[in-house]
Amino acid sequence: MDLAGIGATVNDGVHRLALSDEEIEARRLLLVWARELDLEVYTDAIGNLFFRADGQDPKADPVLTGSHIDTQPAGGKFDGAFGVVAGFEAVRAMREVGFTPRRPIEIAAWMNEEGSRFSPGMMGSEAFAGRRPLEQMLAVKDAQGVSVAEALSRVEKVFPQIRRRSFGAPVAAFLEAHIEQGPILEAEGKPVGIVTGIQGSRRFRVTVTGEQAHAGTAPQRARKDALLSALDMVAAMRDAFCDPEDIIKFTVGLFEVSPNAPSVVASRVFFSIDLRHPHWPTLKRLGDSIANLCAERRGHCEVKVSEIATAESLEFPDAIQKVLVAAARELGIDHMLIYSAAGHDARQLHYFCPTGMVFVPCEKGISHNEAEACKPSDLAAGTRVLAEALAQLAHTR
Amino acid sequence: MDLAGIGATVNDGVHRLALSDEEIEARRLLLVWARELDLEVYTDAIGNLFFRADGQDPKADPVLTGSHIDTQPAGGKFDGAFGVVAGFEAVRAMREVGFTPRRPIEIAAWMNEEGSRFSPGMMGSEAFAGRRPLEQMLAVKDAQGVSVAEALSRVEKVFPQIRRRSFGAPVAAFLEAHIEQGPILEAEGKPVGIVTGIQGSRRFRVTVTGEQAHAGTAPQRARKDALLSALDMVAAMRDAFCDPEDIIKFTVGLFEVSPNAPSVVASRVFFSIDLRHPHWPTLKRLGDSIANLCAERRGHCEVKVSEIATAESLEFPDAIQKVLVAAARELGIDHMLIYSAAGHDARQLHYFCPTGMVFVPCEKGISHNEAEACKPSDLAAGTRVLAEALAQLAHTR
Repeated sequence: MDLAGIGATVNDGVHRLALSDEEIEARRLLLVWARELDLEVYTDAIGNLFFRADGQDPKADPVLTGSHIDTQPAGGKFDGAFGVVAGFEAVRAMREVGFTPRRPIEIAAWMNEEGSRFSPGMMGSEAFAGRRPLEQMLAVKDAQGVSVAEALSRVEKVFPQIRRRSFGAPVAAFLEAHIEQGPILEAEGKPVGIVTGIQGSRRFRVTVTGEQAHAGTAPQRARKDALLSALDMVAAMRDAFCDPEDIIKFTVGLFEVSPNAPSVVASRVFFSIDLRHPHWPTLKRLGDSIANLCAERRGHCEVKVSEIATAESLEFPDAIQKVLVAAARELGIDHMLIYSAAGHDARQLHYFCPTGMVFVPCEKGISHNEAEACKPSDLAAGTRVLAEALAQLAHTR
Repeated sequence: MDLAGIGATVNDGVHRLALSDEEIEARRLLLVWARELDLEVYTDAIGNLFFRADGQDPKADPVLTGSHIDTQPAGGKFDGAFGVVAGFEAVRAMREVGFTPRRPIEIAAWMNEEGSRFSPGMMGSEAFAGRRPLEQMLAVKDAQGVSVAEALSRVEKVFPQIRRRSFGAPVAAFLEAHIEQGPILEAEGKPVGIVTGIQGSRRFRVTVTGEQAHAGTAPQRARKDALLSALDMVAAMRDAFCDPEDIIKFTVGLFEVSPNAPSVVASRVFFSIDLRHPHWPTLKRLGDSIANLCAERRGHCEVKVSEIATAESLEFPDAIQKVLVAAARELGIDHMLIYSAAGHDARQLHYFCPTGMVFVPCEKGISHNEAEACKPSDLAAGTRVLAEALAQLAHTR
């Protein structure tokens, strides 16, 4: 709640954009917590923060945990912040019981996960994992024309004492605690979800071209009705993308008709397809069938399908999932396996080191919203699982 | 073409709104033609014009023909104008062959059929047939705040010599020649259509209410997807409103989705239904089934159906159709029976006296458009059928 007070909005939400005054203020608070726990602090060329608790073996590769402290413009208290706070709490708990693992543990606050001020997001974790060129990210500008490089140098002037590290140092594992941002844990009554992977998504735009005609005079069979053809396409996809387990997510959310007049047969429809599935080969296959499904149902109209974005589904390693499940069992915390519907910094770290995630429920699945809400008991349960798993991963060879 | 020159647009169309300067100029041209044919001229309280050719029996009820001289803002040369010009031509032809029927023949130019400047249209024929209170129409204002009453008094000052008659004098029959405004005659290669009736229309608005949800996280089966429910409703109606003869006209031309975002399940869809059929009991039955069809397909959503406009289908009397068919046969003019998909002044006259219509083809069925085009030979064929039928109707007891 102390962190949520920085950038707090009148509607009980949080406005804390990456590298903004509020985010600098939040960094200051993390430094206070770090001093209390006697943690070393590091940063890097993209403005990530690392708070390091030394282990018994100072030469061992560290275990990382954390998330992000930036928010959406009208965001909530928990998205990102929970994962960072949970990391501090896990280290504090180990200190309180006098436990020092073999490996160092580092709490990371990844820079600009949300991508609201500087687009796209996940810059900190992408740069750290070497997934996108640093120079490209530093050149990105916000709406006021301020570049990431400029905003970073301002932050560095505020915190000249923080040592800078280079990218690429080996990491033993990464665990991220996060709110679910979906309704499943709440519906199932589980305080903790062990995340099996992140579902991928494929996004398409479809343009159906028919011919304008008079509603009163044009014979039905001669019409090139773009609306009826588009409807046939959507119906065909809905039927094809219906699985008994209800895992496929198929959404047509945008649907625009021209000329959109009650007595004129539509000459053009433009609609979106958002298709997601946690299993990449399945998502690949389903997405690849869209062009054909649309062509088959185009009737007298023409159709053009283009894919505008692709994110592969990924599965976190079994070994990490097992450590998390074992931790929950040992603590007697009710839990379930769940996949992540949204992307996270863990997506980037997954390609760099063994990675896993712990979810806690959020009310009605609402996030990216000032109304974001979590039960303290769920946050505590998630934090306990995170701490136990971190201790395990940091203590083994 | 002389009439089409008044209000001519750069794109070869006509802009001649009811009671405008251009329409006053057109009235002046009709008066010139009337003088050439020695016709008496009358007007009435709604600004209709009547050009009377006396018959052998001055006391006999007249046969009326005509249409309108106002156009859409970017209208064509033929919609309305053809029917008025054909009336003059029919009378001229009778004079040329020295034929004077028993009954008077009157050419009517009905005021404001289009309803573009003063809405709704068909004011002249409605007032004449006593179908709507005169006071209501006189109070209607255009976009500049000018009322029909004010515009009429301006026209009356330009033509003080025209005698005013009251409404309600008996009429033996009314015949209207008009362009088809549809593609059927052209497709069938017929220069003339004998109109059997005017198809009615029923117009509905449907609101489907679901619930906004996240495309990536909301399980498919729990969704209240307003777009998918709306598509189901439209598909059900398309299937139900499909007849082997292809006579039903079913159009969803307006379709609006909220919030209309690619990654958000639609919470609301608002769409239009335009349903037409020449047989009123059929149209009644089909339209009455819509609320149920929508309710059955609403899925997890709510649906509200409201009817916003109704125009009954009507059938012109057999006796008039027979006179028109006999005329075409006698002249050896290829013809077919056809119903009118659009409304006309004849709709109003039908409730006042025995009424019929003659159609001629227009290119690609295009009308209400500057590109409106007709073949001179078709216009001549339609005019000959009109003249022959007028002569028949005006000569019999």
